[in-house]
Amino acid sequence: MGLKETSRIKSFGGTTRFYSHRSEACDCDMNLAVYVPPQAEAAPVPVLYFLSGLTCTEKNFIEKAGAQRYAAEHGLMLVVPDTSPRGVNLPGEDEAWDFGSGASFYVNATQEPWAKHYQMYDYVVQELPSLIKSSFDVKGDRAGICGHSMGGHGALICGLKNPDKYASVSAFAPIAAPSQCAWGQKAFTGYLGSDPQLWADYDATELIKSHQDAGSKFGSILIDQGEADQFLKDQQLLPETFAAACQQANQPLTLRLQPGYDHSYYFIATFIGDHIRHHAAVFSV
Amino acid sequence: MGLKETSRIKSFGGTTRFYSHRSEACDCDMNLAVYVPPQAEAAPVPVLYFLSGLTCTEKNFIEKAGAQRYAAEHGLMLVVPDTSPRGVNLPGEDEAWDFGSGASFYVNATQEPWAKHYQMYDYVVQELPSLIKSSFDVKGDRAGICGHSMGGHGALICGLKNPDKYASVSAFAPIAAPSQCAWGQKAFTGYLGSDPQLWADYDATELIKSHQDAGSKFGSILIDQGEADQFLKDQQLLPETFAAACQQANQPLTLRLQPGYDHSYYFIATFIGDHIRHHAAVFSV
Repeated sequence: MGLKETSRIKSFGGTTRFYSHRSEACDCDMNLAVYVPPQAEAAPVPVLYFLSGLTCTEKNFIEKAGAQRYAAEHGLMLVVPDTSPRGVNLPGEDEAWDFGSGASFYVNATQEPWAKHYQMYDYVVQELPSLIKSSFDVKGDRAGICGHSMGGHGALICGLKNPDKYASVSAFAPIAAPSQCAWGQKAFTGYLGSDPQLWADYDATELIKSHQDAGSKFGSILIDQGEADQFLKDQQLLPETFAAACQQANQPLTLRLQPGYDHSYYFIATFIGDHIRHHAAVFSV
Repeated sequence: MGLKETSRIKSFGGTTRFYSHRSEACDCDMNLAVYVPPQAEAAPVPVLYFLSGLTCTEKNFIEKAGAQRYAAEHGLMLVVPDTSPRGVNLPGEDEAWDFGSGASFYVNATQEPWAKHYQMYDYVVQELPSLIKSSFDVKGDRAGICGHSMGGHGALICGLKNPDKYASVSAFAPIAAPSQCAWGQKAFTGYLGSDPQLWADYDATELIKSHQDAGSKFGSILIDQGEADQFLKDQQLLPETFAAACQQANQPLTLRLQPGYDHSYYFIATFIGDHIRHHAAVFSV
């Protein structure tokens, strides 16, 4: 079940590539984008995963964030999966922009009809890294993980649950306490059922609460949050709730509130250089 | 007939903005994107126009090229018009991707039914700069102009015909000798009629031929061309034809053939930093 390349475009001395492949975890074809930096021609390179937000595909970040420039500078491979299974013919999968296709929330669904295909947590944490390692000359056992909004939530939970797999974690405007916001409650109810006890395992704030001296495991987490972000005002993101939990658990966190910035890719483009440096610094130790 | 702002998003310390306005030249509403760099808060800034290629709107470049980063670094305002009138209800305007809407070729059409609205040369060279000067605190009488593909052709002809208005010219994969390629012949026949004599005034190669000691007027022109560009192979771009004319006319030209690069925004993103530096260097003299 290897990667099938659909296109390859030279950029910043390396190549931006698009792939599809059969996913066992999700029991369907999945799409992803990869940026291979020029350094990969000479030696193995570390990998940074980027998880995108609601409604995105594997293309938004790779087309709009300007990340290749920095990945080429620091010699990091970027791997950008799609945000959900596509076209798996589940009733209602395309009806809402915040649930179903484009809105997996990176969990393993237990509820019907989603459970058969929506196993995005296993896909991101197990299947995809194994596929990347078998397809590219990857440096190191651990990767970096970053994400935006729903994907910021994804990056935080994948990182916090798997310090053996991820050496560095960062996020843009993450849904940082999904059990306490409308988006998260809707998604978790649909994918995991109505018992909030079952949600804690996919909630970054709850995961941090359950650790003592978390920082020794996870290193410092970097989060950028635009202060003019409408979803911040709508209480969907709750970074301060996550920050309070980090403080209690001795988890080092750099939460930067960026005045005037919104939730868009213009915000991500402005600060992605800092995030890539954050991850590259961990790999160069 | 001022600019009507439709959105404003903070990026790289400045703001990316979208506007519409009533155009007298085109006798319809037109859209444009503007990036105002952070330096504009303290002092007037020079302007760089970017003309986009076939099928593009005012959004492609501003979303995908990553230009804001460099414009913020050098303190340049970016102005990106749409590539044609839209929705003016001409028969066949939306039938072809290389003619009509999204494909004005930046000429003043003389043929019906196009002549009423497709006056994009006057729009870009006269109306838009005057609108920008009355709406923003602009530094200097002359601007820079850059473009891609059809817009590279546009940048070259606007620059070569108006050394009093443009201090610096550059292009990505321009249609550099439109009278000699299929795209240009189709467009010029449709907009200007079937007499090739009438095309020369909108053909960069022909314009250069008519100048002696051109370089003293225009300064050095920068062109980047990807060697893996399918349209180069298809003989639509003909940079070497333009280069030969420049040599005859003593027009300094830096034509960089970039191995492996195609015609896409990944190519533009890779080299836009060099182009913005090229323009900024002229303004900082």
